[in-house]
Amino acid sequence: MASISDLTIAVLGGTGPQGRGLARRWAGAGLSVVLGSRSTERAAEAAAALAEATGGDLRGASNHEAAAACDLAVVAVPYDGHADLLRALAEPLAGKIVVDCVNPLGFDQQGAYALPVAAGSAAQEAAEILADSTVVAAFHHLSAVLLDDPEVSSIDTDVLVLGDDRDATDLVASLADVVPGLRGVYGGRLRNAHQVEALTANLISVNRRYKAHAGVRVTDI
Amino acid sequence: MASISDLTIAVLGGTGPQGRGLARRWAGAGLSVVLGSRSTERAAEAAAALAEATGGDLRGASNHEAAAACDLAVVAVPYDGHADLLRALAEPLAGKIVVDCVNPLGFDQQGAYALPVAAGSAAQEAAEILADSTVVAAFHHLSAVLLDDPEVSSIDTDVLVLGDDRDATDLVASLADVVPGLRGVYGGRLRNAHQVEALTANLISVNRRYKAHAGVRVTDI
Repeated sequence: MASISDLTIAVLGGTGPQGRGLARRWAGAGLSVVLGSRSTERAAEAAAALAEATGGDLRGASNHEAAAACDLAVVAVPYDGHADLLRALAEPLAGKIVVDCVNPLGFDQQGAYALPVAAGSAAQEAAEILADSTVVAAFHHLSAVLLDDPEVSSIDTDVLVLGDDRDATDLVASLADVVPGLRGVYGGRLRNAHQVEALTANLISVNRRYKAHAGVRVTDI
Repeated sequence: MASISDLTIAVLGGTGPQGRGLARRWAGAGLSVVLGSRSTERAAEAAAALAEATGGDLRGASNHEAAAACDLAVVAVPYDGHADLLRALAEPLAGKIVVDCVNPLGFDQQGAYALPVAAGSAAQEAAEILADSTVVAAFHHLSAVLLDDPEVSSIDTDVLVLGDDRDATDLVASLADVVPGLRGVYGGRLRNAHQVEALTANLISVNRRYKAHAGVRVTDI
């Protein structure tokens, strides 16, 4: 298995807050990043701004071009457009590792709650659609605010990495480890992804109650 | 709302590993504990052993007697018998805070996984059955091995406390805070209990991979 520093990372949905923040951190860590978006123009603008801010290797592209150009793709789109985007990208993503960090959540006056997903979780839905890719679930609990804040030099949280392929989960854990503060921790098989995605609703409750940008650390490891 | 140190705590299922470990910690912290079990005799034996080990205030009783005698009850039974036990105890538990720490999990050759629960979660099931009690969900992720080991003086984990009644969740958070190492953290409403219960499956995967007794800390609070 290649080292993460040799790979080109696509961030699909890279102009959204989560995707943009992840792209910023990875470019800052010296990785080669292609930022994908529905709009090539917005992707190019965001990539240029992040390249200037980080001094890193970033370029913008359509989601399809980014999927085709990368070795490993990170899916950071709202759950709404998740299945449609993946169906459209199944071919360029074939044979690659696809990291799903989508949280299927609803919001009402009482706050956030987990949406039911027929496949069990967004990650399992991705695995069903991308039958020729290796799907890994990770990066669910990161605060987009902290990720995208250039004044924040280190983010105090573990990244739970779930999947059924050991080489792939190890590689994705290393994608967490390159970001200061983050630590990749194996968190189980893909069939246990639902609760990790849904836990984001609880962290939103924590953030409201304690006025925080909460993360999660696993103890005793 | 009373202080936790003025209350009598029942641990229902108190001769199981989780219940016994919790009873040990609370008795060691100076709380008054009634250990409930299907067998009054086994409850009395376990309570006597824990009282000797901790110097604390413990006695054994049937689950029904413990439910009747307590101010606050903790449900630490296997999910199998959860609904039946609560139906049988609805009357003595009326008007009281009931803390559900049950994890509905299945196990197969690939490890642990979350069982579907018609009510959404064990805690919501408890709330449906115990219409006259105030149900709080907490203490899901504690290692029974660490809890029940007298050589372990402090346990490095937060306790996520979920519920719809602020006074009740605050009180139950204080029930975590009295145990060295534990910290009670509000984790959202009862409708978001499922993923907290199910996350125990992920921690079991962590424990296998890293040969650990993993806990969870919430960062930035």
